Amino acid sequence: MAPESPLVTEAKKIPIEPLKYTYTERDVILYNLGIGATEKELQWTYEGDDEFSALPTFGVIPQFPASGLLQAKLLHGEQFLSIKAPIPTSGELVSQARLLEVLDKGKAAAVTSVVETRDKSGTLIFENHSTVFIRGSGGFGGQRSGSDRGAATAENAVPKRSPDAVVEEKTSPTQAALYRLSGDENPLHILPEFAAIGGFNKPILHGLCSMGFSGKHVFQKFGAYKDIKVRFAGVVYPGETLVTEMWKEGQKVIFTTKVKERDAIVLYFRRRNPG
Amino acid sequence: MAPESPLVTEAKKIPIEPLKYTYTERDVILYNLGIGATEKELQWTYEGDDEFSALPTFGVIPQFPASGLLQAKLLHGEQFLSIKAPIPTSGELVSQARLLEVLDKGKAAAVTSVVETRDKSGTLIFENHSTVFIRGSGGFGGQRSGSDRGAATAENAVPKRSPDAVVEEKTSPTQAALYRLSGDENPLHILPEFAAIGGFNKPILHGLCSMGFSGKHVFQKFGAYKDIKVRFAGVVYPGETLVTEMWKEGQKVIFTTKVKERDAIVLYFRRRNPG
Repeated sequence: MAPESPLVTEAKKIPIEPLKYTYTERDVILYNLGIGATEKELQWTYEGDDEFSALPTFGVIPQFPASGLLQAKLLHGEQFLSIKAPIPTSGELVSQARLLEVLDKGKAAAVTSVVETRDKSGTLIFENHSTVFIRGSGGFGGQRSGSDRGAATAENAVPKRSPDAVVEEKTSPTQAALYRLSGDENPLHILPEFAAIGGFNKPILHGLCSMGFSGKHVFQKFGAYKDIKVRFAGVVYPGETLVTEMWKEGQKVIFTTKVKERDAIVLYFRRRNPG
Repeated sequence: MAPESPLVTEAKKIPIEPLKYTYTERDVILYNLGIGATEKELQWTYEGDDEFSALPTFGVIPQFPASGLLQAKLLHGEQFLSIKAPIPTSGELVSQARLLEVLDKGKAAAVTSVVETRDKSGTLIFENHSTVFIRGSGGFGGQRSGSDRGAATAENAVPKRSPDAVVEEKTSPTQAALYRLSGDENPLHILPEFAAIGGFNKPILHGLCSMGFSGKHVFQKFGAYKDIKVRFAGVVYPGETLVTEMWKEGQKVIFTTKVKERDAIVLYFRRRNPG
């Protein structure tokens, strides 16, 4: 067995309690608005619509308090979401987190937790994998690569041709203030002092909010999907314009999201297994 | 005693049950965002701010289900809000509605209900008076003027001089979709088909949402207040720009709010009794 960081050995001993998340259609609308759904998209903003539904990336919300503790303190590097069953538009879900693996990336350790989210009958609805990077905690002689879900592998490299689809969308200056009502209340996303401590000029958008925008863009162009994975490559400031470029490769959509104003890539995305 | 409409005689017999409203800081932020508060106004959008508070017109929210039933079906004409105690940023409030008066305006009847909203200790927090106009129900020989709280009296006419303060603010196209999460789910404000039935080109902003914007503008220029009254004079389409012109007259601020794009007056407002 590969060695692991003593910090991690300790972390593994911490029992992680199941976490309840109760929500209504109002919470679903609030989430959808938080990732830019509009009044013209009634299937996402009006509970009385025949097609009313949560956007697929809502799947990161019920589990957030279970995986978010780590993310709040550390660099959130990757997120993988698998949608295992139709997303209820209200109800009570229970999430159970566990540590999946700790990889030794040289300078950093990459810690991946898995959260399974189930409904009251026990049916699995979502599986989330969150990877955080702990700078300065690598080099403990651990395994370098694990059960990768692929955002950055060669297999998922961006094709050389022009994108098959592009969606451009301006975020609102109040985007983070709205998104945080869906459960991520880290002051980094609203308090200028906190953002400054983190080395940012001003509060940054939640990574999972950017993921939501990109996931919506993929949905708008290619329809429903079951799995989505993203690597967080940069920050978005609320008010900036996101441009998602998408390439269809077989059953998979490979995509990146850039900030138009700074021509900076902020997300690498991959979707697979169309729903 | 003046005669009254038979319809109203019947309405008065209906017992109105006390109505509970339970809320958290999240609901306060959601309301504040719904009337245009921004990420720069942390006192309204960040629960950890030392000055965190509900905007004064939040006072129409807890009572809404008690008075809103009438407003949903009829033409909401006027709203008077009196803030009787500091607004809690979370908790449980109870509202009790009663019919105040029915005035005979000739072609229309004007029905005013009063709702008192109290905290659990019984302390009065808000008093709301909502007036709806029922077209075609006047002419029953009833009293023409009642316990007026003054929006349209000569005493509150707009002064002839230039306004003492002006605030201009663009609403968002998603404003109504966001505002309705604070409790007014009338489809008129989101469903194009319903708006068409009401004779509008597209869904209109909630009158009480426009009131919230204007009340915020008064707060921004003249500080806290205890009473506010508005007459609804026109509609606002989400995305339009509101311009509130304000005149300080003694202890009172008289104001109007216009839609910039159509130069249409949509609200007459009056504030009195500075807090």
